[in-house]
Amino acid sequence: MLNQDIISIDQFDRETLEGIFEVSLFLEKEIKGRGSLDLLKGKVMASLFFEPSTRTRFSFESAMEKLGGNLVSATGVNFSSMAKGETLEDTIKTIERYADVIVIRHPEMGSARIAADSSNIPVLNAGDGPGEHPTQALLDFYTIKKEMGKVEGLNIAMIGDLKHGRTIHSLLKLLSHYENINYYLVSPEELKIPSEYLKGIKSYKEIKTLVEVLPDADVLYMTRIQKERFASLKEYEKLKDCFVLNKKMLESAKKDMIIMHPLPRVSEIAVDVDEDPRAKYFGQVENGLYVRMALLALVLGKLKLKEKVVI
Amino acid sequence: MLNQDIISIDQFDRETLEGIFEVSLFLEKEIKGRGSLDLLKGKVMASLFFEPSTRTRFSFESAMEKLGGNLVSATGVNFSSMAKGETLEDTIKTIERYADVIVIRHPEMGSARIAADSSNIPVLNAGDGPGEHPTQALLDFYTIKKEMGKVEGLNIAMIGDLKHGRTIHSLLKLLSHYENINYYLVSPEELKIPSEYLKGIKSYKEIKTLVEVLPDADVLYMTRIQKERFASLKEYEKLKDCFVLNKKMLESAKKDMIIMHPLPRVSEIAVDVDEDPRAKYFGQVENGLYVRMALLALVLGKLKLKEKVVI
Amino acid sequence: MLNQDIISIDQFDRETLEGIFEVSLFLEKEIKGRGSLDLLKGKVMASLFFEPSTRTRFSFESAMEKLGGNLVSATGVNFSSMAKGETLEDTIKTIERYADVIVIRHPEMGSARIAADSSNIPVLNAGDGPGEHPTQALLDFYTIKKEMGKVEGLNIAMIGDLKHGRTIHSLLKLLSHYENINYYLVSPEELKIPSEYLKGIKSYKEIKTLVEVLPDADVLYMTRIQKERFASLKEYEKLKDCFVLNKKMLESAKKDMIIMHPLPRVSEIAVDVDEDPRAKYFGQVENGLYVRMALLALVLGKLKLKEKVVI
Repeated sequence: MLNQDIISIDQFDRETLEGIFEVSLFLEKEIKGRGSLDLLKGKVMASLFFEPSTRTRFSFESAMEKLGGNLVSATGVNFSSMAKGETLEDTIKTIERYADVIVIRHPEMGSARIAADSSNIPVLNAGDGPGEHPTQALLDFYTIKKEMGKVEGLNIAMIGDLKHGRTIHSLLKLLSHYENINYYLVSPEELKIPSEYLKGIKSYKEIKTLVEVLPDADVLYMTRIQKERFASLKEYEKLKDCFVLNKKMLESAKKDMIIMHPLPRVSEIAVDVDEDPRAKYFGQVENGLYVRMALLALVLGKLKLKEKVVI
Repeated sequence: MLNQDIISIDQFDRETLEGIFEVSLFLEKEIKGRGSLDLLKGKVMASLFFEPSTRTRFSFESAMEKLGGNLVSATGVNFSSMAKGETLEDTIKTIERYADVIVIRHPEMGSARIAADSSNIPVLNAGDGPGEHPTQALLDFYTIKKEMGKVEGLNIAMIGDLKHGRTIHSLLKLLSHYENINYYLVSPEELKIPSEYLKGIKSYKEIKTLVEVLPDADVLYMTRIQKERFASLKEYEKLKDCFVLNKKMLESAKKDMIIMHPLPRVSEIAVDVDEDPRAKYFGQVENGLYVRMALLALVLGKLKLKEKVVI
Repeated sequence: MLNQDIISIDQFDRETLEGIFEVSLFLEKEIKGRGSLDLLKGKVMASLFFEPSTRTRFSFESAMEKLGGNLVSATGVNFSSMAKGETLEDTIKTIERYADVIVIRHPEMGSARIAADSSNIPVLNAGDGPGEHPTQALLDFYTIKKEMGKVEGLNIAMIGDLKHGRTIHSLLKLLSHYENINYYLVSPEELKIPSEYLKGIKSYKEIKTLVEVLPDADVLYMTRIQKERFASLKEYEKLKDCFVLNKKMLESAKKDMIIMHPLPRVSEIAVDVDEDPRAKYFGQVENGLYVRMALLALVLGKLKLKEKVVI
């Protein structure tokens, strides 16, 4: 994957997906054993956050540093040269002279692609507004496969705002490389998943309440529902508890299922769930570190898919 | 002190205080000799400044880097995930997955404690609004003991706004572990020290003007007085010179006394004092570096109290 | 150059200029060969950007990191201690305790000099408003000498707003150490170069349009013209194309000439020029990295003029 850009989950076939999984798993073990590596010593990552996202920025930056690399980092809309009328293309053509890899977060859909096309060094999309956030999908995939030991044969329930939830859409797309997954889609009527995301999905049920899916789910992927998305406040008050998880409810769940959430959460998972060993959402955060390490090491040519050697 | 949080000066007994002193002194010598160390290589410090404080942030960050560590750093009220309604607890539970130690500055009292309780990695309080700023007190203590060679038996004068001055309150508390210190408290009537901070203090005098204490003081701890704190502008004009130090006044001071200030200063120390060898306030800044290095090395388990070995 | 400040181009004589050129060239080769060096390991650069300039900040920061050094970095007008009334002098006297070298960008002319005078560690001026930006001039010089193999005997055309263009003024000053250069100055009447910058320049022509100089130019130094600078919008519409370069126009230019621009550009160079091998403006950006590396290594005493050894 040397010099490859990471822009969209569409670029990953099943083989690449599993290759990235293996490298991530390998790096997780190495880091847990040694604390850090020197793989990317002397490399500089430019962290370009045109809109703030502290958690995503920290994840990429820490991944780079734990592999021995360095960073230059900027946050905020007012990139000074762009205020003077510079195009994104020129900004990227400038930044690439200072760095070995670029991580970009930008509010406009398609901007990461533009950046990648302007650059001779690899560009990693850290979210382009309503567009994609491919590393989130990869870490979700990594979490499921690592925790459950497999992907096929699972019952995966997705809960919340399935209409706007970008992480849900992306994960569905990644999982479409796998057969034999049963989906349970739990959302209010007005926040149902758009049919385009169900292409290629063979087995799914649309369900009204979280409680109904709990006994069957192997994976419970929770997401936020914003109050404003409901038809009316009355509707919201009536329905909201159908999409909220608490500790008591977990009694009916499988012993080895897992609970995921892209975070930040607001109130859709009660805090008393956090201590349950099935709660993996903070572990998911940490998995993001290993997946991003894997991508950085791969696109910078320090590791190869199916070939993992660290000195 | 492995994995310990540093939240409040109340957590230090005299033995710990002197242990930290020794480690700081040891690191000061090592750094002055070698420039930097590799003690914290591969470790990542998350620098979370919910309100800006460039000097404190730089001090912690440079301390980390001079010990070979790395950092991820964020400043500003708008931590993006919190804007979406995330609690401080969840923010910390996320950040701890990216880092080995957290330094937090937050405008709300008690927030550092909340962060520490939410975290499995050590949390260092870099100031929680009207709450505490324990590393400032530790560096003040370090400065006095290093410069004077002792703490007991000293005449310590504290000047300025003793009512609101947090550094004064904290230093008094730390010094309360020591006997036989004479305090001279110099402030306008309305900015006198609250009696609660004098608990356990045996010998002190409240004095009206700086000039009166100069001949006796071994330590002159100056602080800012804000104009707005006075009863009236007239009152301010009448009194302000009673709390301002200049070069000429130092003629009556002891030859081996020291002048301290937590900085920033406005006009309470004239610039012509800076060149006097007794002026230690910029040295105090540097001492903060060594004290923070000591704390980072201790809580990350790379050094132990009473046992200092660097490879 | 150990411990020297870099504040103004006036401080460089021809010998120093060529010494810096040689060290930059040496570091460019080293970095291209090895990726990074450990020359500045353990050193900390404080990056103080009182006004934002992402590209200049990244250039200095990446230069520091590629030489193995670390950084503490702050951007924005609201340096917290200065908001409390601290002077720039005190801010610098504090920061120097945390760092080994300071890079400062400040909107006020003269501020870099004040910082340098307050500091015991070297200070590098990264632009002080309408004042100077000496590293830009040095990298422009480096680009010309490296690309053309010489400076003397060249035809150098400067295009655009020659009245306000700081980079033009500085480059002219640097080049005044050299004989036998022919200048072609191309600007609208109201944006002509002020006569003070022509002192010591023997051969120059003032020309109305870019097209006229193209056949002769060895170096074409393009700059932005802001619409607002013209006498009227009508005037602007009439003249603007006289100062804009596109691919077609380059047919009349020499085969081995070079096109420079301090960037950011707006529309004065058409994007179709970028792929022409004579377009060196993004290479200029990269040259800035090597020149800043050279300066950092020199003022920190890790390299000497005329003596280049890296372990």
